[in-house]
Amino acid sequence: MQYYVGIDIGGMTVKGVLADGCGKVFSEGVIATDSDRGAEAMSANIVTLIERLISEGKVDRSEIVGVGVGCPGVIDSGNGTVVFAGNLNLKNYKLAEVISERTGLAVKITNDANAATLGEAKFGAGNRYKNSILVTLGTGVGGGVIIDGKLFEGGKSAGTEIGHMVIVENGLKCTCGRRGCLERYASASALMEQTREAMSGDPDSKMWGRYSLTTVTGKTPFEYCDGDQTAKRVVDTYIRHLACGIISLANIFRPEVIMLGGGVSEQGERLTAPLQKLLDEEIIGGIDYAPVKVVKATLGSRAGAFGAAALFM
Amino acid sequence: MQYYVGIDIGGMTVKGVLADGCGKVFSEGVIATDSDRGAEAMSANIVTLIERLISEGKVDRSEIVGVGVGCPGVIDSGNGTVVFAGNLNLKNYKLAEVISERTGLAVKITNDANAATLGEAKFGAGNRYKNSILVTLGTGVGGGVIIDGKLFEGGKSAGTEIGHMVIVENGLKCTCGRRGCLERYASASALMEQTREAMSGDPDSKMWGRYSLTTVTGKTPFEYCDGDQTAKRVVDTYIRHLACGIISLANIFRPEVIMLGGGVSEQGERLTAPLQKLLDEEIIGGIDYAPVKVVKATLGSRAGAFGAAALFM
Repeated sequence: MQYYVGIDIGGMTVKGVLADGCGKVFSEGVIATDSDRGAEAMSANIVTLIERLISEGKVDRSEIVGVGVGCPGVIDSGNGTVVFAGNLNLKNYKLAEVISERTGLAVKITNDANAATLGEAKFGAGNRYKNSILVTLGTGVGGGVIIDGKLFEGGKSAGTEIGHMVIVENGLKCTCGRRGCLERYASASALMEQTREAMSGDPDSKMWGRYSLTTVTGKTPFEYCDGDQTAKRVVDTYIRHLACGIISLANIFRPEVIMLGGGVSEQGERLTAPLQKLLDEEIIGGIDYAPVKVVKATLGSRAGAFGAAALFM
Repeated sequence: MQYYVGIDIGGMTVKGVLADGCGKVFSEGVIATDSDRGAEAMSANIVTLIERLISEGKVDRSEIVGVGVGCPGVIDSGNGTVVFAGNLNLKNYKLAEVISERTGLAVKITNDANAATLGEAKFGAGNRYKNSILVTLGTGVGGGVIIDGKLFEGGKSAGTEIGHMVIVENGLKCTCGRRGCLERYASASALMEQTREAMSGDPDSKMWGRYSLTTVTGKTPFEYCDGDQTAKRVVDTYIRHLACGIISLANIFRPEVIMLGGGVSEQGERLTAPLQKLLDEEIIGGIDYAPVKVVKATLGSRAGAFGAAALFM
């Protein structure tokens, strides 16, 4: 048998999974990232997690094909190096080499969003398609692209920054330095900001019933959109922003499926149905020849670790 | 020796080239498209052109690897079919099969913008790079993408419609049905429209010296931008629009080079220098790790035929 280890590095925790080529899980675990104690401490934790997965999974070490790692930041996947990861305090760190030396296993790394995309494409919502895009709607807007069954990372594995495509020229200032990025209009954070603004402008909104400006979440406007005009307006406007970005991606990549992940995607059809309608209306050339489906991603927070494991499949 | 025929179908004329794998030309020619006389007439002309290229090129027919064809519209390159080409009156036309049967040669087809991209990538401005994008600034904004040395056509060869990425949500109405597409702000036609508007708003503009609203071209504002504030504003605004789209493409594909083609690209450094500056400032993560160059395409109207020939290389 052949087994694969997948590691997903987050700001707070590192998730790991040991699986076979069909995605059957043999062991799964979590450990603290500890990046504030330095790169060495973080790597030591990752190695500890890998060893635990192997022993708990009760598989023969010689049957492990490799360890895939998804890491935030700019990753040079060709050299196995973390070029820059701000929130992990890493710069030009040879992560793959370090993990490989300590475990004796082959190691590949990629960006965490790319790993999640590969996970969804291989074991989640995209597993029947050769061309897919994952768009994650969380603190930011991230994601990745699968072309012909393979992960597309962009030149020097530094591409697919789909959240930083401008949809509103001279629009809201983004953390990346540009103005009007999709991320500033379609992330969960943006949705919360839009909801707070709408509530502030409408003291009669029903959203005030259970929420204050400090307790608003991305779910708030969706909860109230059936009976509250202000909430409905927030949701409709948010969906139009998201559609604007998604349809451009569809025109550029023409994938068979666009998968939505991240917190906001939990709204399911409330989100995908109106997006599909807008996409079908606006995609170039219509949908007869090459339709593009909009679906909810299915693996949730496990997508990254599964996709990392799939780097060796 | 191995030779390749490249055919570039335009609305008025069909261009053809017979070349070797290094791009050395053995014969070159043009024939009327005649698409208004029907698909058969057009195909007959193409076959006539191919036969003429072969006889004038004085190469042995058995040494011709194949005929590549670039055609406007939605092309199913896998099946060799023109799915839809409005200005050629073609729908579900098996172009590759027809040409192949009449010439006895292998035939591949792709979208004309994709062919031009492959031409520039192989024999033009992109020939030192593995990852490149061509953006053509003509009547519309077209182009294509080269990933790892290969033409990327998108799913069902219906992608890379880079002119139909929205840069201004709810902006100007585009022929594709959407609003705010890059094409509406960065095509040569858009630049002419912007120039006419600016002239109408400034009766003192020096542009009135040699131009009227009916004789304006895409060159007009560039000609006057050194001594006329209104012309300068048109050029600066146009470049910012174009930069907006180009930087998003850079963030998505992270190519080594973005090549500008089409009429407006004749401005050369007047266009590429300010675009490079804006890109370097705004591209995500900066340019230390993965810089992206902005250059002028070099093959001009021959790019399509050369790229079509390269479909078999």
